[in-house]
Amino acid sequence: MSEVANPEQSLSLSAALAEWRGLLGEAQVLTAESDLARYARTCSSSSRAPVAVLKPGSRDDVVMIVRIARRYKTPLYPISTGQNWGYGDACPVLDGQVIVDLGRMNRIQKVDRELGYAVIEPGVTQRQLSEYLAEQNIPFWCDCTGAGPNSSFIGNIVERGFGHTPYGNRVQTVSGMEVVLGTGEVLETGFGHYPGAKTTHIYPYGVGPFMDGLFTQSNFGIVTRIGLWLLPIPESFCPFLVMFAEDEDLFGAIPELRRLRMQRVLHSVPHIGNDLRALASAGPFPRNQLPNTARLPLELRQQMRQEAGIGAWTMSGAFYGPRAQVRLHRRLLKQALRGVRAKVIFLPSSVLELGAWVARLCDRLGILPGLGQKIRAAKALAGMHSGRPTGFFLRGAYWRKRGGWPADLNEDTDLARDALGLMWMAPILPCRAEDLRQVNAAMDALFAAQGFDCHVTVNMINERALAAVYTIEYDAEDAKETAWALECYERGVEELYSRGYPIYRASTRGMSLLAPTVDDPFWATVRGLKAVLDPEGIIAPGRYQSRSFAYDR
Amino acid sequence: MSEVANPEQSLSLSAALAEWRGLLGEAQVLTAESDLARYARTCSSSSRAPVAVLKPGSRDDVVMIVRIARRYKTPLYPISTGQNWGYGDACPVLDGQVIVDLGRMNRIQKVDRELGYAVIEPGVTQRQLSEYLAEQNIPFWCDCTGAGPNSSFIGNIVERGFGHTPYGNRVQTVSGMEVVLGTGEVLETGFGHYPGAKTTHIYPYGVGPFMDGLFTQSNFGIVTRIGLWLLPIPESFCPFLVMFAEDEDLFGAIPELRRLRMQRVLHSVPHIGNDLRALASAGPFPRNQLPNTARLPLELRQQMRQEAGIGAWTMSGAFYGPRAQVRLHRRLLKQALRGVRAKVIFLPSSVLELGAWVARLCDRLGILPGLGQKIRAAKALAGMHSGRPTGFFLRGAYWRKRGGWPADLNEDTDLARDALGLMWMAPILPCRAEDLRQVNAAMDALFAAQGFDCHVTVNMINERALAAVYTIEYDAEDAKETAWALECYERGVEELYSRGYPIYRASTRGMSLLAPTVDDPFWATVRGLKAVLDPEGIIAPGRYQSRSFAYDR
Repeated sequence: MSEVANPEQSLSLSAALAEWRGLLGEAQVLTAESDLARYARTCSSSSRAPVAVLKPGSRDDVVMIVRIARRYKTPLYPISTGQNWGYGDACPVLDGQVIVDLGRMNRIQKVDRELGYAVIEPGVTQRQLSEYLAEQNIPFWCDCTGAGPNSSFIGNIVERGFGHTPYGNRVQTVSGMEVVLGTGEVLETGFGHYPGAKTTHIYPYGVGPFMDGLFTQSNFGIVTRIGLWLLPIPESFCPFLVMFAEDEDLFGAIPELRRLRMQRVLHSVPHIGNDLRALASAGPFPRNQLPNTARLPLELRQQMRQEAGIGAWTMSGAFYGPRAQVRLHRRLLKQALRGVRAKVIFLPSSVLELGAWVARLCDRLGILPGLGQKIRAAKALAGMHSGRPTGFFLRGAYWRKRGGWPADLNEDTDLARDALGLMWMAPILPCRAEDLRQVNAAMDALFAAQGFDCHVTVNMINERALAAVYTIEYDAEDAKETAWALECYERGVEELYSRGYPIYRASTRGMSLLAPTVDDPFWATVRGLKAVLDPEGIIAPGRYQSRSFAYDR
Repeated sequence: MSEVANPEQSLSLSAALAEWRGLLGEAQVLTAESDLARYARTCSSSSRAPVAVLKPGSRDDVVMIVRIARRYKTPLYPISTGQNWGYGDACPVLDGQVIVDLGRMNRIQKVDRELGYAVIEPGVTQRQLSEYLAEQNIPFWCDCTGAGPNSSFIGNIVERGFGHTPYGNRVQTVSGMEVVLGTGEVLETGFGHYPGAKTTHIYPYGVGPFMDGLFTQSNFGIVTRIGLWLLPIPESFCPFLVMFAEDEDLFGAIPELRRLRMQRVLHSVPHIGNDLRALASAGPFPRNQLPNTARLPLELRQQMRQEAGIGAWTMSGAFYGPRAQVRLHRRLLKQALRGVRAKVIFLPSSVLELGAWVARLCDRLGILPGLGQKIRAAKALAGMHSGRPTGFFLRGAYWRKRGGWPADLNEDTDLARDALGLMWMAPILPCRAEDLRQVNAAMDALFAAQGFDCHVTVNMINERALAAVYTIEYDAEDAKETAWALECYERGVEELYSRGYPIYRASTRGMSLLAPTVDDPFWATVRGLKAVLDPEGIIAPGRYQSRSFAYDR
C-alpha cells in the first residue's frame, strides 16, 4: 500500500527527499518502515501508509517543502497532530503521499490578554494552550473538544470540529489565517495582508472576498497560523447534567431545548449522548457474557442502564455569566423540562470538590466503584466546559477492544496506537424531535442489521441545528466484524444522504461518497478553485474532493 | 461618461440588448437617457451611468442574462435595490456596464416559523420582510440596519453590512446561498446542492470548502437567494440610550463596555454616535449663521449640544431575553458606567407609548419641538432594534443640503434622488479606548483641515472590535466643497491604512485604494479566483478588485 506506483515517480520522490533532507536535516525526514507504520495506524481500518514524513519547524520550511513538492509533483498530506479520531486519524486519503507533520510548529506566538485572543501554530494542543493561559494568569479559557489534551486546535478547526463552551462553534472564533497555498505562496486572510494592520485577529472578514472558509474541509493549502478567540472567564460557571428517562422524554424536551438555545439561555454547545455512550465510558462491552455478538440485547442494555443509574439519554452543558444570570438560567432550564421525565443535576465547583473528595475516599475504601467513576466523569466534564481538556471521554472508544481498557489508560490516550475500531457518521439534523426520532430509528435499524450497537451523540451546534454523531464501535482485530463495520459505514452515509441529512464532515473513507452526481456544480467549482490555488494538485489529493475526482484522473 | 468605448463594443452591446429584449421583454430592458440618469444618481460624486438596465424576474432570467453577457463580453453590474448609501448607491465602479436590477426578484420564498428562517430573493426589502412576519404572526423579528425600509437584505449582506440586534453581525445569519456564477452556472452553497437536503438553511457550512464568504465583497457571481436567520421575539425587550458627557467619559467607559460585550450582557450591536450625528438628525447645518464654512466652530457646536440636551456621545442598544435577565442586564449596564459621567435612559414599551402620546400632544399644541423630536427618535430606535426598519436615521444625510430637509421627507427617503453629498469611511478598530481616541483625533484633524465636521459612529460589531464610520457630509451642489470632500475621503482612507486600521468596506471610489502593493498575494489570489469563477470578467469589473486590477488590463 505504501509504495509509489511507478519507477518515474519513485525517482522524483528520491530527488525530492534529497532536497527536503537538505532543507530540514536528516532527523526531520522520516522514511523508516517503523516510522511510516506509526503514521499509518488508524481506527477506521482504512490505513494508508505515507511514503515519507516531513517535520517542518517553521512557516518558511513549509513554503520550501511545497515548492520542492511542486517541482517534483509529489503529493503532500499535512497533519497537525494527526488525532482526527473517528474520521481517519493521521492517514492520507490516497496512497503514495508524503505526510507533512506540523507538530513541531507549536508556538503560541502571541496572547492578547486584553482583547482575548491567541495566535497559534498547528502543533499547539489543547493542553498546551490551556496550561499556558493558567500559568500566565490570563483571564480567558480556551474552548475544548472531547478529543483529548494532545489534539490540535488548527487540526480540529480546519475540519470544522466543534467544542462545548459558548465558543464551541469554533470556525466563528478564528480571525486571521496564514496559509501556504499549493502554489507555494503565503496568503494572509482578513486584514493580515495589510502591513501593520492592528485588526487582523479581532475581525475575521477584512475587506474584499472573505476566504477563510476555503481552507476548511479542503485541500487548497496548508494553514500555518490562526488567530483564535478565547472565552472570557465568567463571574460564575455551572456545569449541569440532565438525564432523560426514555427516548420520548428527550424528544418531548427538544422544542423546549431549542427555545432555550434560541433565547441564548443555553448559549454553549450542549452534548446529549445515549445510554450506550455513557456505558462505554464506564467499561467495555460484556464480551464474556456475549462472545458471539457486537450488539447488546435490549434487556441487558436496559439492565446495564439501570445498574449504572442513568437514563436513555444524558445531556451535559454549562451556564456561564454573571452570578445572578447563572442562577436564572438554572431555574429556566428546570422549568423548561417540567413536562418530561428528566433529572437535572447542577455541578457547581463546591459540589465537584466535595465529590472528588468522596471519590478518593471510595477508591481508598474500595466501595461504591460506580460513584467514583461518575464523579470523575462529572469532573472531566466540568473541566472540558471550562477550558481544561480531558482524555476521559475517549475511553468509550475501547467498547469493542479485546481485553478492554489498557493498563496504562490515561489522559494521553492514543486511540490509533491501540488498534481500536471506531468510525463516526456525523449528519446535521434540524433541531426538531421528528427528525431526530426518524434518523435515530433508521440508523439503529441499520446498525442492528449489521450487528452493532448504535452509539449516538447529539450536539446543539447552533440555534437551529443538531450535529449528530452515530458511532460504529467494532473489533478491528476481527476481520469479519471489520467488514461489517465498513459496510455499516457506507450504507449509513448513503442512507443519511438519501434521507436529506448529509454529513457535516467526512472520514478518509467518506470522501468518495460526497458527490451525488458527477456534474454537481458545487464539486465542479471545488475543482476549479483547486486548479488555481494548487495547480499541480500536490496538497492532499482526494481530501474533500468528490467521487468525480476519481473520474477526472 | 456613459458611453461605450469603441464601435466594436457598441455593436456587441446592441446585439446583446436585442437578445436581452427577446428574453425579458422590452419593458424590462431600459436604455432611455432618463432611466440611465436615474440609476447614475449618487451621494458620492462618483457617478457612473450604466449603458443599460436589465430587470430580470427570476433566477433563470439571471442565468440567461449572464450567458448572453458572456458571449458578447458585456460587463454586468448587479444591484439589489441600489441603496448602498455612503458607499456608492447603485453606481457601477467603472463606465460602460449594464446594470442588472434584481428588484423585481422580491419573493419571500419560504419562512420556517419553527426553526426561524426566511428564504429570500435580492429584491426583498427590510419593510417587506418585517411586515410579512407581523402579518403572518410569525414569532420572529428581522434584524434591521439604519439604511431605511427600502433597502435589501441581500444587497446589504453581500457588502457585509451589519444591523443592531443580536443578529446584527449579519453574515453569521446566512445559511445556504444560491449564486449565478460568472460562468452562468448556478452554485448552491452549504448543503443546498444535495438534492432533498433538509439542512440547507440551518447550518451554513455544508461539507467540503465553505464558500459563502467568496460572494461577499467580491465580483464572482450574482447572489439570487439566501436563507436568513430570524431573531426569536424575546419575552422581554428594552431599548436604552446612554449619553456620555464628554469624549473622556466614552473612552473611560470602553473597557467596561467591552467587558459587558464579551460577557454577552451586551449581546446586540450597540451604536455610539457623536454629538454631530445627533444634531444632524434634528436639523441641517446652520447655513444662515455660517454661510462660508462647512464646519461648526467649537463654541457653537458646544452650544447646540447643550440646547439639544445631548452629550458628546450617545450610545443606543437594547436588551433582549427573559424578563429577569433584562432586569439584570439593565442593572449591570448602570453599574458598569458608574465611573464615568453617563446618563442611562431605558425605553421599555410603556415609556415609549406614553412618550408617543406626549409627542403628539406637543405637536398639536406647538410646544416643546425638541421633545417631540427626541421621542420620535427614541421610537425609531426601538423599532429598529425590534425588527421594524426606519428611515429616521437617514435624515442626518441632509446636514449640508441647501434648503435643508425636503418637504416630503418621510420613511422612504431616497438619498441619491436628493443629490446629497455623503461619503463613509469605515475602519475596524480594536475595542480599546486608546485606538479610538487616536483615530478620532487623527480623523478630526484631517476633516478640520479640509473644512468639514467629522461625524462619527462607532458600532460594537463583535466582542473585540469596533466598526467606526467617519462620515463626510458635503454640499454636492458646490463644486469646491465637493472637491474638498473627495480629497478628504482619499486622504482619510490612506491615513487609516497607514495607521493600521484598514476599512472594512469600500465605496466605489475606495476600490482603487484597496491594495498597498501591486504584488499583494491576497489580491493576486482574488484575481486567480476571478479567472475561474468569472473567466470573461463580466461581473462588476473593478468591484473589490485592487489597484493592480488597473495595471492588469
